[in-house]
Amino acid sequence: MSTGTTSGGKGSLNLVKDGAEGLEPMTPFASSRRVFVEEGDVRVPFREITLGGSEPPFRVYETGGDLVHAMTPDDLRRGLPKLRKAWIDRRVARDGHNRTQMAYARAGEITEEMRFIALRESVSPELVRSEVAAGRAIIPANMRHPESEPMIIGRSFLVKVNANIGNSAVSSSIAEEVDKLRWSVKWGADTVMDLSTGKNIHETREWIIRNSPVPIGTVPIYQALEKVKGKPEDLSIDVFLETLVEQAEQGVDYFTIHAGVLLRYVPLTRNRTTGIVSRGGSIMAKWCLHHHKENFLYTEFERICEVLKKYDVSFSLGDGLRPGCIADANDAAQFAELETLGELTDIAWKHDVQVMIEGPGHVPMNKIKENVDKQDKLCKSAPFYTLGPLVTDIAPGYDHITSAIGAAMIGWFGTAMLCYVTPKEHLGLPNREDVRDGVIAYKIAAHAADLAKGHPGAQLRDDALSKARFEFRWEDQFNLSLDPEKAREFHDETLPAPGAKSAHFCSMCGPQFCSMKITEDVRRYADEKGIEADSALARGLEEKAAAFRDGGGQIYLSEAEEE
Amino acid sequence: MSTGTTSGGKGSLNLVKDGAEGLEPMTPFASSRRVFVEEGDVRVPFREITLGGSEPPFRVYETGGDLVHAMTPDDLRRGLPKLRKAWIDRRVARDGHNRTQMAYARAGEITEEMRFIALRESVSPELVRSEVAAGRAIIPANMRHPESEPMIIGRSFLVKVNANIGNSAVSSSIAEEVDKLRWSVKWGADTVMDLSTGKNIHETREWIIRNSPVPIGTVPIYQALEKVKGKPEDLSIDVFLETLVEQAEQGVDYFTIHAGVLLRYVPLTRNRTTGIVSRGGSIMAKWCLHHHKENFLYTEFERICEVLKKYDVSFSLGDGLRPGCIADANDAAQFAELETLGELTDIAWKHDVQVMIEGPGHVPMNKIKENVDKQDKLCKSAPFYTLGPLVTDIAPGYDHITSAIGAAMIGWFGTAMLCYVTPKEHLGLPNREDVRDGVIAYKIAAHAADLAKGHPGAQLRDDALSKARFEFRWEDQFNLSLDPEKAREFHDETLPAPGAKSAHFCSMCGPQFCSMKITEDVRRYADEKGIEADSALARGLEEKAAAFRDGGGQIYLSEAEEE
Repeated sequence: MSTGTTSGGKGSLNLVKDGAEGLEPMTPFASSRRVFVEEGDVRVPFREITLGGSEPPFRVYETGGDLVHAMTPDDLRRGLPKLRKAWIDRRVARDGHNRTQMAYARAGEITEEMRFIALRESVSPELVRSEVAAGRAIIPANMRHPESEPMIIGRSFLVKVNANIGNSAVSSSIAEEVDKLRWSVKWGADTVMDLSTGKNIHETREWIIRNSPVPIGTVPIYQALEKVKGKPEDLSIDVFLETLVEQAEQGVDYFTIHAGVLLRYVPLTRNRTTGIVSRGGSIMAKWCLHHHKENFLYTEFERICEVLKKYDVSFSLGDGLRPGCIADANDAAQFAELETLGELTDIAWKHDVQVMIEGPGHVPMNKIKENVDKQDKLCKSAPFYTLGPLVTDIAPGYDHITSAIGAAMIGWFGTAMLCYVTPKEHLGLPNREDVRDGVIAYKIAAHAADLAKGHPGAQLRDDALSKARFEFRWEDQFNLSLDPEKAREFHDETLPAPGAKSAHFCSMCGPQFCSMKITEDVRRYADEKGIEADSALARGLEEKAAAFRDGGGQIYLSEAEEE
Repeated sequence: MSTGTTSGGKGSLNLVKDGAEGLEPMTPFASSRRVFVEEGDVRVPFREITLGGSEPPFRVYETGGDLVHAMTPDDLRRGLPKLRKAWIDRRVARDGHNRTQMAYARAGEITEEMRFIALRESVSPELVRSEVAAGRAIIPANMRHPESEPMIIGRSFLVKVNANIGNSAVSSSIAEEVDKLRWSVKWGADTVMDLSTGKNIHETREWIIRNSPVPIGTVPIYQALEKVKGKPEDLSIDVFLETLVEQAEQGVDYFTIHAGVLLRYVPLTRNRTTGIVSRGGSIMAKWCLHHHKENFLYTEFERICEVLKKYDVSFSLGDGLRPGCIADANDAAQFAELETLGELTDIAWKHDVQVMIEGPGHVPMNKIKENVDKQDKLCKSAPFYTLGPLVTDIAPGYDHITSAIGAAMIGWFGTAMLCYVTPKEHLGLPNREDVRDGVIAYKIAAHAADLAKGHPGAQLRDDALSKARFEFRWEDQFNLSLDPEKAREFHDETLPAPGAKSAHFCSMCGPQFCSMKITEDVRRYADEKGIEADSALARGLEEKAAAFRDGGGQIYLSEAEEE
């Protein structure tokens, strides 16, 4: 099954299965254009939204790169431009081999990737470097994935969102997965995990990586299991390392590895309501019990580090024992594994390998903060990357919502990246619309977290959109939103006429009852009458009110008195 | 425009507009039947879900009453049975006039409504009485709405959800609104507000109240404004009181009244990003400025209390100055009004009139708790009833999600009822599907809050559903969920065959990679090998692990040593 080395990052795609066949046109965002902020050889893309009235254009962080503009199968066969190739080549030539972003950061060197990120996040390059050096942030950037646009995952930066795609044995084709990648990044996913488990794992991944402007993550044990014909007990460190090399060569940027599922922890899950719900966790638990040996991902962890170090693949240390329901949240099994992930973090850092830590799962709101605090302490502030968490189990079909609640909160508390959940969670494989619903729900959660953390600049977009709303600039309100197409579609359902886009009301209240319309009148009236909002007046009124209350708290004044 | 007294609660509906014309069949919940818990003359309905395997049936709180079973236009014309009529008649005959639930509670009397609620919430009748007496909970139950099934709003009880319906001048018919009422209560709305502002306000409301098993709220200023032909400055206490009597006679259970929008607060909104976004608030602000007089709802508050007291209509003191965007959250205008609502609460309580307090709006996560704490203090623990709050402004089209995040959190912090927001918020009038999306998102938020508060029994449903999930009882998983139809539909999208309902996997992972399937194998294997999860073993393993760590923290054991 292994194809050995590949064309990773070097040539055009020429595979048995054609991932381009299902390409459908993707409407670009209205009133938007791509602009670049340049500094030296670093050129960072933003999406600039043109606004009406006398408003200046508004720039937003975007992750879609050239992929959202790819309009033909040929575009996909060619793959994206190799943005980082020159930087990587230069460093390798200079140093004789590849080094990780963490190694450069620790050596005090600010890489091009770090400068790119600093421009992208409006922070100093030194902040980027120092956070990576301290292990508090990672830059997932495999040297074999030069197509990726550098991004950072860490609590001092914007909260990021991951979208999972990937086929299963039951459903989905390569073309569908490439299509999901495109839609994921169009809506703003910051990284994408390819969780394919069916046939054509290697080919699917190749199509995805060559066309991905965002870092790609995988769970290599899935492919390793395919290599041993689906029998967990036949897994070994050798087949696992072979798989890692194969995927690292292709350009995978981070690997989920369930090295914390220790033999002695497995019995701790025995009385759980839903046992082990991580696929990788359950595979390793089965292996451990079958052989009654310690997890080889744990015992051979340094050999794994050696592979990741060579390509600068980052660890996403998997939470194989995460809770799968409210009843199992924050239990002994979960926290025991977390402690082990903390130990492994130190070992990875010894090798200059970047690390993030995966987290739950299903957790009621009152137990979320404990997760973040424990992770921060046990894993020495390595970035936390959580799935949701879902704050209740009772809403299959709506788990993008049950989990967006937990995700927003855990992001506020310090989680650096949120793994999305789609409405199909627990029920089936997501399609393109589910991907859209999942990504948008998580962009909401991530942005809400940025706002709550007081991230500099996060509120600018809220302010711009709210101003547009108040001024009845309907098109601007749509265009500034996370999903302009949906906003426009909903508005037009009841008021499709072009004139309604400049109307000073909508179908919710109609013209008579529009509070914003009335507020406009109120302001105009107040201005005419010289009623100002300056603080002197407000204070004067407040003093008058206080005196009034002091005078006995009598609330009934005759109108004459009030005058 | 006023029709004077009505047939409220007395006869069949015989109106110009036919609210029954649009009735469509409503599929009952699968494997469910209505059961009643009886105690004396109190008979409380629950929905009982039949489960597979050897699981006992599961009972859930439901609010749909007979309405969800109404299948013909004639059912709607007849209205619902008058469940509370005998109780009300008996008390009125005894006391000579109607008294409020608060009056009875303070006098130490436990009403039938309180006993109904105690059974419904699995708490003691004395808790219900004492919370109502203390003003910490309300039972919205107009004597003219005997069709309603008693429910309670207070922080010691299950968190409730309100759904807004109502047409506007631009859109929607009576039939559509009755239909939205049916779907709201089918999905579990605890109260419904009729916010109609267009023509046929009175008739629409009559159809809604006569068919509503849940309390109905309104914002009477909307109809008062219609009576003065849409000119806020022509409003007066007389036309307002006339409107209150008309609506109280019909059976409205709670009134939103914006009595806290004081003249001196209006200038505090002058420099806001979105000014005044409450319709009622903006109407009263305009009136105040026009006349340069104090809000008549404030100056004549005791006359308003007299009307509400007579029918036992509850106050929902409106937050006319709530923030309409993130930038305006927790500002001086909002908190000034809240202080006034606290003063008014005392006055209403003097009259034994029940009170809840409305809250925001748009609030970033980090400012939510301050709202609850201030409200609790200023309004002496009167129940809080909040709209969302939305935790970001940038996702029109998805505001059921932006607001469910804030709603779940504010519910956890103590808010007693959550006013839903639909995906159409800010964009248009919701249709039936939007109502479904809004109610389910808020049932999620309310339940997540109950879980986080540790409400007794709240987790039983999560546990039952998760057990069904783990045991691959797909039908049970669907039936226990908040929206069984959606869960089934999503599952069947990829695996429609009947056999898939008993399959030990789904299309997400396929048979090979199903973690729950593997966990079953792990447990079977562990059982065969005598590997138990008893605490002795877990302790033993933990000791072994500790000794191992103490022995130098060397993680590489040879396999022989590990054995």
